[in-house]
Amino acid sequence: MLKWFVSVLFCPLVMNAQLNDSLFIKKMADDIMTNGKAHDNLRYLTKQIGGRLAGSPQMTLAENWGLETMKAMGADEAFLQQCKVPAWNRGGQDKATVINVNGKKQKRPLDILALGNSLGTGKKGIKATVLALASFNELEQRFAEVKGKIVYFNYGFIPSNIQPFRSYGDAGIYRRIGASRAAKYGAVGVLIRSLTEATDNNPHTGVMSYNDSFPKIPAAALGLQDADYLWATCKQNAAVQVILTTNGYFLPDATGHNVIGELKGSEFANEFITVGGHLDSWDVNEGAQDDGAGVVQTMEVLRALKAMNYVPKRTIRFVLFANEENGGRGGTMYAEAAGEKKEKHLFALESDAGGFTPRGFGFTASAATLQKIMTWKDLLLPYGVYDLRQGGGGADIGPLNRKFGTVLAGLSPDGQRYFDYHHARSDVFENVNKRELHLGAVNMAALIYLVDKYGL
Amino acid sequence: MLKWFVSVLFCPLVMNAQLNDSLFIKKMADDIMTNGKAHDNLRYLTKQIGGRLAGSPQMTLAENWGLETMKAMGADEAFLQQCKVPAWNRGGQDKATVINVNGKKQKRPLDILALGNSLGTGKKGIKATVLALASFNELEQRFAEVKGKIVYFNYGFIPSNIQPFRSYGDAGIYRRIGASRAAKYGAVGVLIRSLTEATDNNPHTGVMSYNDSFPKIPAAALGLQDADYLWATCKQNAAVQVILTTNGYFLPDATGHNVIGELKGSEFANEFITVGGHLDSWDVNEGAQDDGAGVVQTMEVLRALKAMNYVPKRTIRFVLFANEENGGRGGTMYAEAAGEKKEKHLFALESDAGGFTPRGFGFTASAATLQKIMTWKDLLLPYGVYDLRQGGGGADIGPLNRKFGTVLAGLSPDGQRYFDYHHARSDVFENVNKRELHLGAVNMAALIYLVDKYGL
Repeated sequence: MLKWFVSVLFCPLVMNAQLNDSLFIKKMADDIMTNGKAHDNLRYLTKQIGGRLAGSPQMTLAENWGLETMKAMGADEAFLQQCKVPAWNRGGQDKATVINVNGKKQKRPLDILALGNSLGTGKKGIKATVLALASFNELEQRFAEVKGKIVYFNYGFIPSNIQPFRSYGDAGIYRRIGASRAAKYGAVGVLIRSLTEATDNNPHTGVMSYNDSFPKIPAAALGLQDADYLWATCKQNAAVQVILTTNGYFLPDATGHNVIGELKGSEFANEFITVGGHLDSWDVNEGAQDDGAGVVQTMEVLRALKAMNYVPKRTIRFVLFANEENGGRGGTMYAEAAGEKKEKHLFALESDAGGFTPRGFGFTASAATLQKIMTWKDLLLPYGVYDLRQGGGGADIGPLNRKFGTVLAGLSPDGQRYFDYHHARSDVFENVNKRELHLGAVNMAALIYLVDKYGL
Repeated sequence: MLKWFVSVLFCPLVMNAQLNDSLFIKKMADDIMTNGKAHDNLRYLTKQIGGRLAGSPQMTLAENWGLETMKAMGADEAFLQQCKVPAWNRGGQDKATVINVNGKKQKRPLDILALGNSLGTGKKGIKATVLALASFNELEQRFAEVKGKIVYFNYGFIPSNIQPFRSYGDAGIYRRIGASRAAKYGAVGVLIRSLTEATDNNPHTGVMSYNDSFPKIPAAALGLQDADYLWATCKQNAAVQVILTTNGYFLPDATGHNVIGELKGSEFANEFITVGGHLDSWDVNEGAQDDGAGVVQTMEVLRALKAMNYVPKRTIRFVLFANEENGGRGGTMYAEAAGEKKEKHLFALESDAGGFTPRGFGFTASAATLQKIMTWKDLLLPYGVYDLRQGGGGADIGPLNRKFGTVLAGLSPDGQRYFDYHHARSDVFENVNKRELHLGAVNMAALIYLVDKYGL
């Protein structure tokens, strides 16, 4: 066993291959770091188009821009793939004000954002006493006190989790289903502590959904400074009254599109490799880290492969997905269309965790496939990626795996800052670093190249 | 050999030790990430005290704050160690304006900062034609054209260097000795391209020094947008005239101090472990990443060890060095005093590369010592440190190694953003992320603990 291993390791063919790959990747990395267009493209997407919630006019502008840019970058083909998307509208400014504490009048504004897909309070707003709860456990214990109240869930991130994504996974349920959990016991509105550890007061929106069994009550997130204030005030006082106004509503589903660029495979044209990010964002920001970064990195992989005159063996698809944030319809449609056309989807890579400095990739793959991928580790290490691990992918490529068993990968950038900006007004171009963004694209391009060259 | 290795690896004592260390480090990490004070301390240092160039009034405020804070944190002893520091003053606002291009009058301001330790132009400024050069090589080729000119060196960072510190090492010579290189051939002033890849226009100062054989001409750095403008304008036009005004001067050396906190060793009181950062900063910013971060991380290691009720075997020193930026006098004094007192300095760790998310440590150590350190790798990996390598330390601890052969280590945070802020006005508190800062302190505390427990 050991002998075999040593002989393979030092076999001239294998060594030559690694050397050639190393040189190719270095050349491509040099080009991306020196001539890369991801940062310029992100400037355009964020500053010229801006926030681009599914169903908004900016969605259409972004689709056209993505299509034309990939054509100009030399995609063999670039096309739109139609899908229906939800058309949720914020409908106006979200407002919350503490108006009374223990019978004393106040006028203390709280900075809030209504949660995506939540329904508004009506123009007059809702006036109610706040019941501040630490968790769903406390909700279940104190269910008898809930009726007629605005429930505030103070459940936050656990700072000792070294990976903030773990905290997001843990606390995210309060955003997603907190409204219906509280409505079950007669709450008239829900506020949550924003899913962040940011030291500023920006509230963070994000998708929620209603359980149809209960009244669809308004729901909004508080910035952390206001969250701490509200929690402390409620703990110290018997009665804290708030007036809450949100305006969310749905229009009928709109028509959106996945934007797809393609480099045709020279050997296995019906074997597909997908790389993508999502083009939609929330309405309150520029969607720079989420997921403008993934979009422009995806396009950068295309640009770089063309700059290298690389002719892929397999067909590589560069996909800007339509609707990750509040519906996931783009990813679903992409997998459905693949099924209809009997495409063979070998591998899909998503970048949807920010344009921060890359640290690794997470995979959804068999042990044997992951072992093969691990042999490429030394080729990525010079570019900051050291952590190749089981577990990863992304919301838009998930359907490919569930439908066809496609091997998935997600880029894992450093996650310490991500939730400072995620779904907040602060997710703007200025908070994306050019070198970090381009370095992510380097590693994505290298992985796509290796999968194309060696298969999986 | 293999048998011995395996038996040591699986020996219950070794495994227990690793388990205990892992638990201790986890407990300390939880405490730092949850209760850490580094970010709050940094807020105070940057917002209440601000920039603190050696010799400035803020230097003294910062020293007193450091001393009192380490006392309050429970240092067994905290004291000031006196040293003379240079007292360079910027002396007023640095100005540069393009006033004439090919005979046509202009009034195009250039955003500049005089280089630290450079001398001013006098109040009237210097009016001269610019000779734009790509490098010292070009200077040597075109030396005959230099006389009476302001030389502009456009030598910049090489974006394909994955580690920007490498680019800094490469281009830094233009800042350090560019003035005298040009003065040798009769230049009357020098401008350099700032040592950065930032996409904004902030100029970046930093230390320079004169060669006494040549006239001491003024020297300043240009922000990159203005650098690109000046380069392009000079390349397209025969004569570009600039008026340059800087005001730098020296007062007599001032009295500064290293601020030292100490936890006494319970077994080997005369064996010293040092952890430190530098308290001084440039005058034009808050010195948040450089090196407020290292200062508050150093203090955080003290706070965390006390919070763990850790009693060290060896004496651990927490040192806020006096004068890294434009003299290095603090580090020199610290090693001199150690020599006089015949202290045995086992190990020194410096954090002076920013408070960004940690990736590794660089060591100056023998191969055998590094091998021992490598056995701790799995203990740091959960906190983001994977890269333990030969080569590293810091300017303030360097003298310990040169004098006593002390093993050195430098924290290696992610370097992609560092030079966006380094020595620029933008190095402010808001650009330091709390989690990243605290995570650096976690790894520093873990390393200090391991060195103290196991020696080197």
